Amino acid sequence: MSRRKFKFWGWGYADEQVPADERARLTAHVAKRFAVDGFGAETPPPTVAEIALRPSRIRAPGSLSDLLGDDPEDRLIHSYGKSYPDSVRAFARHFPEPPDLVARPRNEAELIAVLDFADSIRAAVVPFGGGSSVVGGVEPAVTQDYAGVITLNMQRLDRVLEVDPVSRSARIQAGVLGPDLESQLRPHGLTLRHFPQSFAFSTLGGWIATRSGGHFATVCTHIDDLVESVRVVTPRDVSESRRLPGSGAGPSPDRLFIGSEGILGVITEAWMRLQRRPQFRAGTAVRFTDWHRAVDAIRMLAQSGLYPSNCRIIDAEEATMTRAGDGSAHVLVLAFENADHPVDAWMARALEIVAEHGGDWNRDAASAADGHRSGESGAWRDAFLRAPYYREVLTANGIMYDTFETAITWERFHELHARVIDATRRAIRDVTGREGSVSCRFTHVYPDGPAPYFSFYALPRRGAELQQWREIKEAASEALLAAGGTITHHHAVGRDHRPWYDRQRPEAFATVLRAAKRALDPNALLNPGVLVDPE
Amino acid sequence: MSRRKFKFWGWGYADEQVPADERARLTAHVAKRFAVDGFGAETPPPTVAEIALRPSRIRAPGSLSDLLGDDPEDRLIHSYGKSYPDSVRAFARHFPEPPDLVARPRNEAELIAVLDFADSIRAAVVPFGGGSSVVGGVEPAVTQDYAGVITLNMQRLDRVLEVDPVSRSARIQAGVLGPDLESQLRPHGLTLRHFPQSFAFSTLGGWIATRSGGHFATVCTHIDDLVESVRVVTPRDVSESRRLPGSGAGPSPDRLFIGSEGILGVITEAWMRLQRRPQFRAGTAVRFTDWHRAVDAIRMLAQSGLYPSNCRIIDAEEATMTRAGDGSAHVLVLAFENADHPVDAWMARALEIVAEHGGDWNRDAASAADGHRSGESGAWRDAFLRAPYYREVLTANGIMYDTFETAITWERFHELHARVIDATRRAIRDVTGREGSVSCRFTHVYPDGPAPYFSFYALPRRGAELQQWREIKEAASEALLAAGGTITHHHAVGRDHRPWYDRQRPEAFATVLRAAKRALDPNALLNPGVLVDPE
Repeated sequence: MSRRKFKFWGWGYADEQVPADERARLTAHVAKRFAVDGFGAETPPPTVAEIALRPSRIRAPGSLSDLLGDDPEDRLIHSYGKSYPDSVRAFARHFPEPPDLVARPRNEAELIAVLDFADSIRAAVVPFGGGSSVVGGVEPAVTQDYAGVITLNMQRLDRVLEVDPVSRSARIQAGVLGPDLESQLRPHGLTLRHFPQSFAFSTLGGWIATRSGGHFATVCTHIDDLVESVRVVTPRDVSESRRLPGSGAGPSPDRLFIGSEGILGVITEAWMRLQRRPQFRAGTAVRFTDWHRAVDAIRMLAQSGLYPSNCRIIDAEEATMTRAGDGSAHVLVLAFENADHPVDAWMARALEIVAEHGGDWNRDAASAADGHRSGESGAWRDAFLRAPYYREVLTANGIMYDTFETAITWERFHELHARVIDATRRAIRDVTGREGSVSCRFTHVYPDGPAPYFSFYALPRRGAELQQWREIKEAASEALLAAGGTITHHHAVGRDHRPWYDRQRPEAFATVLRAAKRALDPNALLNPGVLVDPE
Repeated sequence: MSRRKFKFWGWGYADEQVPADERARLTAHVAKRFAVDGFGAETPPPTVAEIALRPSRIRAPGSLSDLLGDDPEDRLIHSYGKSYPDSVRAFARHFPEPPDLVARPRNEAELIAVLDFADSIRAAVVPFGGGSSVVGGVEPAVTQDYAGVITLNMQRLDRVLEVDPVSRSARIQAGVLGPDLESQLRPHGLTLRHFPQSFAFSTLGGWIATRSGGHFATVCTHIDDLVESVRVVTPRDVSESRRLPGSGAGPSPDRLFIGSEGILGVITEAWMRLQRRPQFRAGTAVRFTDWHRAVDAIRMLAQSGLYPSNCRIIDAEEATMTRAGDGSAHVLVLAFENADHPVDAWMARALEIVAEHGGDWNRDAASAADGHRSGESGAWRDAFLRAPYYREVLTANGIMYDTFETAITWERFHELHARVIDATRRAIRDVTGREGSVSCRFTHVYPDGPAPYFSFYALPRRGAELQQWREIKEAASEALLAAGGTITHHHAVGRDHRPWYDRQRPEAFATVLRAAKRALDPNALLNPGVLVDPE
């Protein structure tokens, strides 16, 4: 299991750098898009020594001293997630509210000891998986009601405890990072195949707590569908659901904790549904010149019962920005995979559907087993994997890059798309005084609607990045909500999406969530500010 | 919309009878199985005049007199569900706790008026869809804390309000019965395709409130997966979720109400995900002589990614009892259907899998479009549709017939199966002094496990049916729970499953459910005795 240090001011490990030539290509590409010569002086990344950290307001008792630490770099690592405003604040050397202590329990008993200690001194506890939140989900900013904040890093709970090859399930500790999880499953010929963009730096528990969206574009899109049972330590109790493939005994207990973002308890283990590793593949990139016809094709695919594993359209603007295309076409990354049987019949019918809607593809590559890793699909895949690393390059050069996502039924999609693109473009222009780039792709598609994902680039005024970002984010979020979308399809709510989440959810459900919070976390220790405020 | 009266003492409409020849065939078949000459005098069904109903303890105010009635037959119709003990009590003319009033609101305003009235006089309110519960879900038996009981019949809220053909969704009132729902969708070329055995006598709201299991043996097995949004009237408020194909904004609000069995609020409307009517079909019945190999084949099918619409094994004993087979083989009803493309490639691979496990089928019929309605599949389908009607014939002849169901991961299935069959057989023998018939089929299958469904026949002592049933039910339920299963996969909890449900669910979830109940139904008006008791 990796024990490399995470970078406190950006994506990845502290010893990982984006190579100079890749940085140069990236900034040159953005400069060309914005028709500017360059971006002036690049801000160097911060160092630990540069940052005068607030002293810890609380101290670990001797009995917990090997679980709780106040190492400055460790406190910095746990100060922010990986959003654009997090990146801006890191490059500004602005870390006013670090956690006072970082806890790293090795088992549930130690975790409970940490919760008990926090309760005894009225410290808040922020559960922390990989820290990849882009919505302020792990930020230890709490009110004066708390004596301090303990961030609860779960990464020592990193083992696959049991594998059931017959049912294809495994009992897995919640703090395991994606690659460590897969490497433990590989000897069994099994895989979770849940590959969010954050895969390398996020944990199973984080995926469950935030309703992470994964590899599969259809059917089992969210981690929700892969959870067989879940074990949660609440400040009151330990809760464990029965391991079942399906049930109809009352409302699902698991669905209460799935998406609870650490406010009701800390997920420590789950039985997860696994896959055998795929043996058969077919995939290609399909080009469309007409966006509406492309969307119709995807809707037909989503409603066909073919269940492609990949079915992700990237609009021409996004294809340009990620260099997965030349901007002349929208690109649909289409793929099937299966461990049991060849998928040619599936791919053949899918290609009939896209052809009926004006899609075009390289006919030599359509059935190639590595179709998902070659050509435009491969270019897109590389861009997808590198994107989180690029934020630090962009921020260092004063370029605002952010994404937001939603879901909407098909019949309202075009209106939502137009309103959101328009509102975001307009806000960028109004706020920064210059046109930006706003693009759209689909991450997941359902029979009744897509999950559109928007990316934008802007050139904010240096020093005003946070305020300008906030204004753009608000405009985009208002447009999303007004057009009927959800404020998040898989990024979660965190602290950043609270204003819109509060308006989106039924008030009766908010009432229940507050009641659940009072019942399970009566002293409101856990992740204050996320999802609900105690009454 | 049908306004025919329901039968108060059995399944179906009051004017429906099981024809004499069908009754004779059925009883002769059971007599042969039990090696008895016959069953003695048949108990005639009860008449309204025979039953001295307790007078209504509460009166409707004049303003609500056209919504609330106390017609004796109507009160009888709403006294019981359709379980075996319900049938026994009906034939015994035992109706000690009928509802005092039956309400039939035509809209939400009238429904709210009924709830307000109930609150004002401290009457309990039992939501009632079609009344097909087999778990005591609609029984108006409440404690002395209540002034009386109003059963809330939802069947006047029976319309499809909006159809969205692009997203294939519809906004539907909760009180619509299955056939009326489908007949309103048919002109749009759409269908919900949710066909529980109770289809003709159950409602959309009932399906959602009880997590009904439907037509599809794989993927979208429960109604849960077909709900796009839901509208609920609670005693405090009206709750409506946003219509979304998917979301990751906090725990799912809909999943709290799905399966809430009327204790948190009354479901009045839902946006439901629909299908186009299937155009392509392939299906056949596959015979296995080895149960273990049959189960292995089904597991392979469930894990293959083929997603058959039907994949239901009926063991040899059950095939005999339902006359879908001669007892020499276990019968797998296997079918694919699709609205977009022929399913031959799917069926071909599925047949390879069953052949590898010793399955045999009629090779001429495997691809026939009507394969699901002919041969053994057709015989099974007919038996499935007629079974609810047969209870009254069996009860009238003193034959105990009941079913119970569960779900379990594959690696524990054989042990659960052996323990449950053994415990139930033993209980029947111990309790009735005679061997019974206990059989098993699968109603739904998941990649990680099946949903086994057990049926049993016994010959109880006349007059002791209820007590003997309770002892057998307890033995079966204890075995289910001890072997790791759920107390119900799709029949719901109601009042009958409470003791096992209370032990199965995590205590933390029970705490939350009680807190939710206090928050949404503070005076505990709704369906007392189901799922939780107020603290």
